[in-house]
This record gives sequence, structure tokens and C-alpha cells, in this order.
Amino acid sequence: MKKATRAQTKNHNKTLVLNAIYKNEDLSRADLSRLTHLTRSTVSDIVSELIEEGLVVELGYGQPSGGKPPVLLEVDKEARQIIGLDLASGEFRGALVNLRGEVQERVSIAINERSGDVALELVYELLEQLIGLAKTPVIGIGIGAPGLMDSEKGIVHSAVNLDWENLPIRDILCERYQLPVHIANDSQVSALAEYNFGDHERMQNLLVVKIGRGVGSGIVINQQLYQGDGFGAGEIGHIKVDEDGELCRCGNTGCLETKISSRALRQRVQAMILDHPDSGMQAFAKDIQAITLDEILAAYQAGVPEIVEIVEETGASLGKALAYMVSALNIHQVIVAGSVSQFGDGIVLPAASQFQSRILPNLASSTEIKVSDLGEEIVILGAAGMVLQYELGIM
Amino acid sequence: MKKATRAQTKNHNKTLVLNAIYKNEDLSRADLSRLTHLTRSTVSDIVSELIEEGLVVELGYGQPSGGKPPVLLEVDKEARQIIGLDLASGEFRGALVNLRGEVQERVSIAINERSGDVALELVYELLEQLIGLAKTPVIGIGIGAPGLMDSEKGIVHSAVNLDWENLPIRDILCERYQLPVHIANDSQVSALAEYNFGDHERMQNLLVVKIGRGVGSGIVINQQLYQGDGFGAGEIGHIKVDEDGELCRCGNTGCLETKISSRALRQRVQAMILDHPDSGMQAFAKDIQAITLDEILAAYQAGVPEIVEIVEETGASLGKALAYMVSALNIHQVIVAGSVSQFGDGIVLPAASQFQSRILPNLASSTEIKVSDLGEEIVILGAAGMVLQYELGIM
Repeated sequence: MKKATRAQTKNHNKTLVLNAIYKNEDLSRADLSRLTHLTRSTVSDIVSELIEEGLVVELGYGQPSGGKPPVLLEVDKEARQIIGLDLASGEFRGALVNLRGEVQERVSIAINERSGDVALELVYELLEQLIGLAKTPVIGIGIGAPGLMDSEKGIVHSAVNLDWENLPIRDILCERYQLPVHIANDSQVSALAEYNFGDHERMQNLLVVKIGRGVGSGIVINQQLYQGDGFGAGEIGHIKVDEDGELCRCGNTGCLETKISSRALRQRVQAMILDHPDSGMQAFAKDIQAITLDEILAAYQAGVPEIVEIVEETGASLGKALAYMVSALNIHQVIVAGSVSQFGDGIVLPAASQFQSRILPNLASSTEIKVSDLGEEIVILGAAGMVLQYELGIM
Repeated sequence: MKKATRAQTKNHNKTLVLNAIYKNEDLSRADLSRLTHLTRSTVSDIVSELIEEGLVVELGYGQPSGGKPPVLLEVDKEARQIIGLDLASGEFRGALVNLRGEVQERVSIAINERSGDVALELVYELLEQLIGLAKTPVIGIGIGAPGLMDSEKGIVHSAVNLDWENLPIRDILCERYQLPVHIANDSQVSALAEYNFGDHERMQNLLVVKIGRGVGSGIVINQQLYQGDGFGAGEIGHIKVDEDGELCRCGNTGCLETKISSRALRQRVQAMILDHPDSGMQAFAKDIQAITLDEILAAYQAGVPEIVEIVEETGASLGKALAYMVSALNIHQVIVAGSVSQFGDGIVLPAASQFQSRILPNLASSTEIKVSDLGEEIVILGAAGMVLQYELGIM
């Protein structure tokens, strides 16, 4: 607990007002006073300050309830921009995002196996392009990356693919660009993306499972990203789920990643083709030595039975893992993201069915599993959401 | 977020000072001012108030650092009492506890299969005895019970053994005894017991797994009990962990409870005796039709090989479940409580070994699994801890 000083109280009240305007439509100063329990004059002072800073604009007049018609307020979503980076394996991507999480400029750079300092140079390149494209003041840089990130110290503990270890990326970028920098694991920020910009009511708690090349999850608890004691919360990709499972890239066998990642899905389809040289999959494959996820998706959508079966098995494996997570966390809203989530109900229905048969009925019935609608940019949006929260207090 | 008023600020600062005195030894008013960043005069006013209320006492003089020797302060642990109840299956137990979690009076009542209103009468009986025994003002009643409890509304949603459903126990007891009442699931409050009174540093986050007749867990996140969206967080006893497992009392098969509960342990020993009529266990059993946990413990301590094996298998099953929970939560401190925790290293070592082989090495290496030292009274202490937190703000 920290002491409450007058300056903090003032800041707290300002954040309170900004959040109320951000989360509600068509509020007047009087509405704000009712909503925040602050006095009319405190609200007026704060609103004037926010208008002066350009963060809030007057929208016009609302319906009068007797007396003068009220002036309605809204956050000017174009008042500031945020840089979000997704340092995914294969490709670094970045974007300029407005205050409502709308992507305005996109930049990406192929990594081509570059790592270490060379990979860091690519980050500079990306950032310099984005900073050059900004049309309004940039309030900060948010970064999501696979691996273990110390969000407090701003250090990449380990990002194996990039060969980064104990890289103080926050201080490096902060000094170089004179902007606030926030980093976190990519699956973790995906939860912030859903929390801030997902197409659903804002929940207190939220679980997002991101299934792409790797598998990880992000947990929002009490409206905040929960990162655990060592910033590793949600790292579920390498739990052993299969006693006789396949070798994982981590060196262990039977990890969840070997069951449900896009890599696992491709490998299983490839193995199926060897066993069934006459399966319907071949019609969708350009090169049966290198099946792509898009090809599998097309075959799935065309109803190729062998593919439907593999996708459903993937969903079932996800459901088994969710049984543990939901029993522990009792979070009602579970969202599946990442490239494998493109299979939609193909993944979610068998996941839900397994899940329901494996936990207490009343825990199961209150849990909803659905697919993210944020698509490929979820990490960029989550990284931007992190900046929104830490720099403007919007949460 | 709520608005910060002057009254709240004052209350906040008072809680800040009380917490500082509670958690540190030998503080002077000057130390408090440094620690809390409040002014000397604010601290003096608050301390006077706390002394007047009897919560804080002056201890005597400390070492002067030039000038007058400072007056040292401490919380008077006997200033108030708390009633903690453990509505366990088989027996209702209650105690009067001081502000340091020291149990001062104990009362218990056998349930003998009584349920419904009759069981509620037993709660009254317990409380009336305890209130009669109180020597200082009682600040509240805390209740831990197996089942699903709505801690916000103070309602027992369902406690199957007691045949209670949607019982507004808080309002009933509050009206009857004119005391604040707080309820939560028994495994959940066990985490609060460890957090408040366990023999270790206070952690931000804590996971307690309670293994008795049932299996459940409690999670402290950011110094507070985390209960999830539906107050069911930590309800891990009925996750299916064995595809071909035994029938559970919940109606499903292969639940974690069928693998590691005291009931499961007794059943397995009983089955072993049938298979090995000449095992070393018989020497410890009064009635081989009704083996007790104490008898199994005695045989385990004497090194009976069949029993050692069964206990180690139980630990291994626990370790598999912990792999999921720790990967999701990344909590460094895991504590095993409940009657089965009496097996100590017999449970913990195989659990740790399974656990380590099933998750990422750096998650595993930073996690410590140990046995609770709070013994049988953990639920009573947790219930009292809940009152301490909600009524005095000590957390």
C-alpha cells in the first residue's frame, strides 16, 4: 500500500474521469459527476484540463432534462498515437494505433533467421519507420514478444529464437527514442488486447489462450494483466500433457505445444498424408512436403474428413488443458486466439465438449469459450493496450 | 476505481500505519513516518487514535539516535478476539483467536450426519459457546466451509454434505449476533491462513493445496484472496486427471480427488491389503475393514514398503496437477495442507519430482513446494484472517 497524497488524489480523480469518458458514450459533465461521485466543480476542472491536453473533445449538445442542454464529451481517439510491436518468430511487425486500438499504419520486416544485435537493429528500423509515420504525439512504445520478459525491469530474460538473453531493451529503446517503453510476453499482452479492444463487455477477469507456432496464455485479473511471481504466468505451452508424447522443441516430450500448435497440426496432417496417400487433403496441397496452415484450413472448410478429425482432436486436447486452467482460475470468459483459432468452431466446440466433461458442472456451465475477433494483430493491439494503461491510466 | 475522498484518505492512512506496526517490530513514530511517507504529525494523530482504541500499545524506549530515545510501538494482539469456524464434514470446529492468529479457546461439535436446519442450529450452539468464552471485544466471525460460497453476498450456494443450498448464512448470523460475518470456501481461506500466519515471509502470491477428505486449493494474488468470477477459484478436486479412473462421489470418474484425497489413500491401502494379505500394513491396523489415516501414517513412518509406494504415487499425482497450476499462475510458493500433508516429504518429494519433469525448467526451479505448519486449525485461522483483513484492513 502506498500513501495517498493530494497530488495522487488529483491524479486518481483525473484518471477516474478519463476512464469514465473513455468507457461510456455521450456523457455530460453532470453525468460524470453522478458516475464518479466527484463534485461538479472538480469534474469541470478536470474536464477543462483534459480538453486543453486535447485528450477530450466536446461533441455537441445532448437532450436537455429541463434547463440548458448538456454538452456531451468524448475521448478524441486521434489525439495521440501508440506504437505496438509484435516481435513474432519469422517476422517483426509494428503499427501505429490510435487511442481506440484502430491500426493506422503497419510496417513489417522479415527476420530471415537473424538474431542477436542484428535482430535488435531490425527493431530500430521498424521503430524509426513508425515514428516517421506518426501524425500525432506518440505516447509510448509497447512490445510483445515470445519468451520470458521482465516487465518491471524492461528486460528480455530470454527469447530463444532471437538469441536474446538479459537484454535491457526498455532502457535501450527509451534512451534512443525518448519515449516510454513497456514490454511483456506476447501471449500475455494478447489478454490485454482482448480486455481493451475485444468485441465483448469488459470483464474483471479474462483468460486468452494463444495458439500459433507456440502455445501460451494471458490472464487478466481484476482488470490488470497478471504476470505471476516471475513474469511467467500463462506459460502453458510446455506442460507435459501426454505421457507417451512426441519430442518438443524444448527438449521434453508430450508438451501441450506438441498437441495443439500450428506446427503440431501441420506435422499431424503430413503424417496422415503418408498413411492415407489418397486422402482428400492432397487436392489442397501445393507441396505435400510443406503443407501450410492455410491449406489445412481450406481442406477443413471443404469438409475433408481426415482433416476434420485432426482439427477436432486438436480442440479436444485444448479442452483438456482448459479444464485445469478454468478450475484453478474460475474465469467465465475464455478466448482462443492465434493462427489456429482460424478453425473457429472446429477447435472451440470439441474443446468445450471435452472441457465440460472434465470439471464440475457448475464451473463448466458458467464458462464461455470463444474465438478472438482481433485476428493477426492481437499482439500489436495488446502491446498498445499496455501503453494505454501505463501512460494514460485507461484500464 | 472508486473516488478518493478525504475520509477515505484518512482511513487509508490509518490502515497504512496499523499494517506497518503489525508487520514490523519495534517501530517508533519517526520510523513510521519514514516507512509510510506520512508526516510526523499525521502519524502522531493516527497513533494516538490507535492507542485510544487499544489496538496499539507503547512498548518502552528504543535506542536513541541522538536526542530523546524513541517510544516503540506494537499491536496489542490481545486487544480484540476473532471467531473462526471450520464447518468441515464430520465435525464443526470453532475457536477464539487473537490478532496474531493464536488460538485461545477451542470448541467442537460432532455432526453425526445432521444437515439442513439442524446443522445450522449446531452453528448457533458453537457460536454461543465461543461468544460466552470471549474475554475481549470480538471483531467478527469468519467461516470456512467446503462447498461453493458467495463471499460477496454471504450466501452458501451449495454445501452438499450439509444439504445447504442458497443459505444466506451471513445475514442470519449477523442479525442474530450483531457481529460482522465473512464466509468463504475452506480451501480458499487456507490460503489466507498461510498468508497471514504461516511460518514464512509474506508473499505477494501464494498457492495452497488442501488435501483432506476433499481436495481444493486457495490462491492469494497481490496479497488478496482470489476467488474468481464465481467464487470457485481453486476448485481442482474434480478435474478429470485419469481417463480410466475410479468413480468419484461427484458422479464423474477419474477426478483428482479419487487419486490423492485421504479417502482415496485409505481405499488404495484397503485394496492393497486384499491383494497382499501378508503386507506389513496389517500390523498397524486395528480393523482392516476400516483403516484410518493415522494407521497409514504410522505404517509409512515405519517404512512399510507397500505403504511407502502408495504414498509416493499420491505425491506424484499431486505433482502432475501442480504442473498445470504453476504453469498457469507462476506462483513461487506452493504449500500443501490438509490431513494428507502429514506425510510430509513422502508426499512433497515425489510431487516436486513429477512437477519438475513436467514444466519448463526455469518455472520449475523457482517454485518451492512445502508442507504447511499450521496443522488441523488452518481453516479456523484462515477464517480469522479473513476477518482481520476485512474488519481491520490488515493484509
